[in-house]
Amino acid sequence: MYVSLRADLRHQFRRYSSGYRWTLPKCIKDIAQNPPQIGDKIKLNGWVRSLRISKNVAFVDLVDGSSHGDIKCVVRPPSLLPKALNTGAGVQISGVWSESKGRQNFELQVTEQSESQIQVYGGVEELYPLQKKTHSSQFLRSIPEYRWRVPEAVSILRMSSKLESSFSKFFEEHSFFKTHPPIVTSSDCEGAGELFRIESESKLGSPEQFFGKKAYLTVSTQLHLEVLCAALGRVWTLTPCFRAEESDTNRHLSEFWMLEAEIAFIDDVGQLTRFSEELLRYVARTVQNSGFDEFPEETKQRWDMLANGVYTQISYSEAIDLVRQNPTNFKTVPTWGDSLGSEHEKWLAGEYYKGPVFVTNYPEDQKPFYMKKNNDGKTVACYDLLIPQIGELIGGSLREHDLHKLEQEISDRQMDIDPLQWYLNLRKNGSVPHGGFGMGFERLLQYMSGAENIRDTIPFPRTTKHCAC
Amino acid sequence: MYVSLRADLRHQFRRYSSGYRWTLPKCIKDIAQNPPQIGDKIKLNGWVRSLRISKNVAFVDLVDGSSHGDIKCVVRPPSLLPKALNTGAGVQISGVWSESKGRQNFELQVTEQSESQIQVYGGVEELYPLQKKTHSSQFLRSIPEYRWRVPEAVSILRMSSKLESSFSKFFEEHSFFKTHPPIVTSSDCEGAGELFRIESESKLGSPEQFFGKKAYLTVSTQLHLEVLCAALGRVWTLTPCFRAEESDTNRHLSEFWMLEAEIAFIDDVGQLTRFSEELLRYVARTVQNSGFDEFPEETKQRWDMLANGVYTQISYSEAIDLVRQNPTNFKTVPTWGDSLGSEHEKWLAGEYYKGPVFVTNYPEDQKPFYMKKNNDGKTVACYDLLIPQIGELIGGSLREHDLHKLEQEISDRQMDIDPLQWYLNLRKNGSVPHGGFGMGFERLLQYMSGAENIRDTIPFPRTTKHCAC
Repeated sequence: MYVSLRADLRHQFRRYSSGYRWTLPKCIKDIAQNPPQIGDKIKLNGWVRSLRISKNVAFVDLVDGSSHGDIKCVVRPPSLLPKALNTGAGVQISGVWSESKGRQNFELQVTEQSESQIQVYGGVEELYPLQKKTHSSQFLRSIPEYRWRVPEAVSILRMSSKLESSFSKFFEEHSFFKTHPPIVTSSDCEGAGELFRIESESKLGSPEQFFGKKAYLTVSTQLHLEVLCAALGRVWTLTPCFRAEESDTNRHLSEFWMLEAEIAFIDDVGQLTRFSEELLRYVARTVQNSGFDEFPEETKQRWDMLANGVYTQISYSEAIDLVRQNPTNFKTVPTWGDSLGSEHEKWLAGEYYKGPVFVTNYPEDQKPFYMKKNNDGKTVACYDLLIPQIGELIGGSLREHDLHKLEQEISDRQMDIDPLQWYLNLRKNGSVPHGGFGMGFERLLQYMSGAENIRDTIPFPRTTKHCAC
Repeated sequence: MYVSLRADLRHQFRRYSSGYRWTLPKCIKDIAQNPPQIGDKIKLNGWVRSLRISKNVAFVDLVDGSSHGDIKCVVRPPSLLPKALNTGAGVQISGVWSESKGRQNFELQVTEQSESQIQVYGGVEELYPLQKKTHSSQFLRSIPEYRWRVPEAVSILRMSSKLESSFSKFFEEHSFFKTHPPIVTSSDCEGAGELFRIESESKLGSPEQFFGKKAYLTVSTQLHLEVLCAALGRVWTLTPCFRAEESDTNRHLSEFWMLEAEIAFIDDVGQLTRFSEELLRYVARTVQNSGFDEFPEETKQRWDMLANGVYTQISYSEAIDLVRQNPTNFKTVPTWGDSLGSEHEKWLAGEYYKGPVFVTNYPEDQKPFYMKKNNDGKTVACYDLLIPQIGELIGGSLREHDLHKLEQEISDRQMDIDPLQWYLNLRKNGSVPHGGFGMGFERLLQYMSGAENIRDTIPFPRTTKHCAC
């Protein structure tokens, strides 16, 4: 009896004391947005971005990752600075919130009063590579554990987060559901890219297979997304995709995140291009309104172009005409039926239209089997969105939803139909017109951030020979 | 000259006509929320959920995935129904928006007037497995391309989307940044689960390796997330993780999505438990307010418990005491130092406290090397969140940020220190106190949706021998 009473008392006690004593400390963004009262004693946590020491005073600029901005701490006398406090050190500084005569309105004053205190959580070694001088992106990529502490680098990750949350809002407002199509698949979506194979470590070299068959990392989730589209109507995903290509360019990754969407009950490519346009306008406006002041004017003009600029729409045939008419010397001059090369795409968007260009209705030979054919018998109901500097950002199409046409196409292309039976089944029962598109997330981020190299838009870039940790 | 003028005219024309002619059709959720005027002629797209035909009238209940609800179409005379229209067919029905005397306030009336039309996009075959009768979850998993068309199944995917968007809002409101730690890694995070190895298809069986070394699919992104935490302060991710375990249970997947968060400048486990509690309350309230009326009362009580119930917090030592005192017969009775088994966890949360329980400060031997030790020399500053029916939902801890203590621990555990140098470097320069946690996304969804089996919470579940398409 005694035992169960004790347990019961503890029970009661815990129920009312649980979890309510602890909060997260305020971060610098919060403090900048809602400053304390002048004279308040406060504690700041952060890392030392810069440090200047003169005879009577020291200035410590503190950042904590929450924003690009810092808070200046004014230390008088400088002898209050602990020895371990150096650029890059992690610290807690206590002091008095005060008005400032400097470029900011406020500063934290640290004096010999008892409320002042500087605690160094962790200093930096003499060999710490990020002290003061600037570094090349290439060098920074060689120190994956430190590179994101550089202000210009980490701003790109903050933008990445903002892009993703604005996608989430946009799609939810448009009645889409976010879904998780598989990463591991036994299908090879388009027969396109080179695949990665996966197997459990303990079954390597054995005839057994963990999944009972060959399994790969997905190159595109589209086929699976169509299954979900046929149940949820409108679906999207942001999923890692993988291509084992050994190309070493500034715009390819072996592991990248792809935004893909599928929409039921649409039958016109214009519905897809307009939706893509609205999506990009929305996210670009969100970035414009999210305080990314640290980016250069040239980059901000890109946001304005996507948010408020003109989106042009032309057909592939018109694109070929324009390319052939243009006086610039291209390395290759395409005729109808040829691919548009990267040089042509960049010229169309970057030089001719100076803005985003939807190119629709490509020849069917250039595109995968699942795209819906146009009535001309030559082209498919698809589009690429080209943007300046980058080239292709989005690719999409209507999907053929007629079983017999799709079977015929698979046969004409001499593809193996068996592994696609599950996909064909979508056309056997309850088939409806639908379409969708895919966008490389890091490509958009590369454009929006102005990063020269796509490897500076993802925290741990994976390319051939590069998988550091 | 003529040529460039023509191009220029086209240019102008396109600039002002681009993309503004096309919109997505209204979906059933939109129509239910903002009904048209009585008497309006409208078109509905959807799939036939059910069909009843009598002598003078036919009733077609139409769904389109946008919500659980349907819209009733009343067809008079029933001879207007095309032959191919059957349960599961994809259709477009045009008619007149009318008041209804049925359980809904409105209906679409289809008559012999010219505005009425029923177009079948795609019918169903005689062998279509989803006609009328109910099916077991196990059977549905055998038809991955159709299973999500079942109303009870697809409601779980709608909830999945809502959970994810509410995470996005919650974390953004709390100054966290969403990040993309790598899926492919050369590190084995905890030395815990069985790994999947990856290699490019073309290099299989060759001594060359695509990444120049062995590469694996991540089992947890925590170590990489700590790198990002040391730059951004507060980070979170929702990322696929992989464990090649051959266990065949109702709560394990080989591919699952894990929510992980890392928070700089915290030094008390209570900050993590409180934050976890706030996160769960927030998402549970969001689900409560998002119109998931179709779920049974028993499931709604789970939402209420997470949203408004009591969260208890006890130590591991107290948990062991409670388990040892309890009169129920457990299969095993642990003594201090032993693991809490699944039976103990479920009893604590499900029977004793009848609600979520944080268990803190486990013996260090049970936990990974990176957890911060408590002053007692025996336990670490960690927690598991146990919930009824499921058991462990969240696991987290403070991370050891002292270089020497961490090196000592790695040495004591006889782990290989070389592959961890990058991680140790975080403690060499600018180290700060921090901590974080991980939560299996599908486990939460399993609890919130009441799904018996975790394989019913992810569109294409992957387990040993199962990788259907």
